[in-house]
Amino acid sequence: MRVSILRATGQTGSVIVDALLTSTIPKLCDMVALIRPSSIQKTAVVDLKRKGVSIVEADLSGPEAALTQALAGTDVVISTIYGGSLMDEIPLINASKAAGAKRYLPCFFATVAPPKGALRLRDMKEYVLNHIKKIHLPFTVVDFGWWFQTADDIAGDGNVPFALTDVRDAGNHVARIIADPRTLNRRIFAYNEVMTQNQVYDLLERLSGETLERKYYQYWYSCGVRGDNTPEYAAYLGYLSTHELYPNAQWRSFKSYVQEVLEGKGKRAYEHLKDLPAVSAEKEAETTDA
Amino acid sequence: MRVSILRATGQTGSVIVDALLTSTIPKLCDMVALIRPSSIQKTAVVDLKRKGVSIVEADLSGPEAALTQALAGTDVVISTIYGGSLMDEIPLINASKAAGAKRYLPCFFATVAPPKGALRLRDMKEYVLNHIKKIHLPFTVVDFGWWFQTADDIAGDGNVPFALTDVRDAGNHVARIIADPRTLNRRIFAYNEVMTQNQVYDLLERLSGETLERKYYQYWYSCGVRGDNTPEYAAYLGYLSTHELYPNAQWRSFKSYVQEVLEGKGKRAYEHLKDLPAVSAEKEAETTDA
Repeated sequence: MRVSILRATGQTGSVIVDALLTSTIPKLCDMVALIRPSSIQKTAVVDLKRKGVSIVEADLSGPEAALTQALAGTDVVISTIYGGSLMDEIPLINASKAAGAKRYLPCFFATVAPPKGALRLRDMKEYVLNHIKKIHLPFTVVDFGWWFQTADDIAGDGNVPFALTDVRDAGNHVARIIADPRTLNRRIFAYNEVMTQNQVYDLLERLSGETLERKYYQYWYSCGVRGDNTPEYAAYLGYLSTHELYPNAQWRSFKSYVQEVLEGKGKRAYEHLKDLPAVSAEKEAETTDA
Repeated sequence: MRVSILRATGQTGSVIVDALLTSTIPKLCDMVALIRPSSIQKTAVVDLKRKGVSIVEADLSGPEAALTQALAGTDVVISTIYGGSLMDEIPLINASKAAGAKRYLPCFFATVAPPKGALRLRDMKEYVLNHIKKIHLPFTVVDFGWWFQTADDIAGDGNVPFALTDVRDAGNHVARIIADPRTLNRRIFAYNEVMTQNQVYDLLERLSGETLERKYYQYWYSCGVRGDNTPEYAAYLGYLSTHELYPNAQWRSFKSYVQEVLEGKGKRAYEHLKDLPAVSAEKEAETTDA
């Protein structure tokens, strides 16, 4: 199976690439990173090549025929495009159709939310998905819920359940999903477990023996107040869940993640965002997208 | 089971009411027609009452609390609202949620189409559905394909397959669907059979022994050129089909319908549209909606 991935060096892209490279599912090894011409010499790209990923130039703003050429022979196309550039995916989608790709994963990879009116970024993703449906390109939508690694922000009163995934399990979820005919043309909710944000804090405090300042943000209205990011709402929206699809698969528990953190081994996602003074609209878009 | 229906006297509404009144599925008999105050005295409404349908006043432009009151005790709400007034369904949807309705059927009841960009009326229906999803109201979308009774218009070259339903089977499809837990929060494609428009003409000519003038319209781009109105595309979009759900159910074949017509017993849907000089945008909207 040949898998081409856009933004293979990003947060979500890199865990997917690493999981696919080491996946034990047979024939899941021919990885292609689609890289914009100006980035070919970057260290992260050279590192990808060293790992065994083929590098192919792809310019989303260039002619569609060149993109189609870049995708020749590809079975699965995965986009983990930057949240601020979602609409740039459209030419890649058209080229994937022209190249005969058997499955396209648009850049969802976030929390469950209604198709319209709750999360601006979600509205844009659904717009992209509607374009996919209009041109009848086979697809799979994958949402992960919230990362374990960024689970220390609280929306609303912190008592709303929401689903969580360890960023290091995300790639394995994707490896299973793209090799599975049951997931074709479906939405998949790939998550590790469901907790409330106060349960997250309670666990952190219990395992650390410290009392933590609880950071209540009004920001995550969709997850924390509306309570959209749950397996029940996902099922209502038509998602299949990895818990039903892969009952015997292994994934990390949030407790084991916290223990790692306390032992100094855990790593937070979006480390680069940590020192930002305030959450701007752009950052909302960026952080939602993972 | 208590079923409240909006526009019970319309083309689609009336066949649904008749089917539910005579349905053999137990407890499917408590029918309520939601009627605007100004129409309470109309003959068609009086006829409904005579058939055993309860008449309840409902004003979509009035206060939502009154609508909620009108829906008290209702299990299923069905909207067959006029295609030109789709957005007026929103207050009924909100009231259905407030009244605790267990299932809401928005006014789809048409051909399969992509969610966006192929059919203006479809775009509006998806907008309504997205509102339903946002407020987390249990729903079922039902599409019927094309009516047997209006199958004499041809789009494109007439060789694209499309799905067809006899308008008289539509109500029975709905009766089965609203009593079925498998159809909750799903899209259902309820159709009788699949033909190309040229096959329709061939059959008409073969059974009648006449050569017919084939009316090729460019109008139905979605069904006739894009070929959206097929079981395959419906499955891709996530629909369940009545053929899978009810393999032993009976419905009319197109051939038997044509034979009825030739024997002078068949009736065309939208008789009132027959004499229109040309298909305007408004008429497009209206005819799509059934």
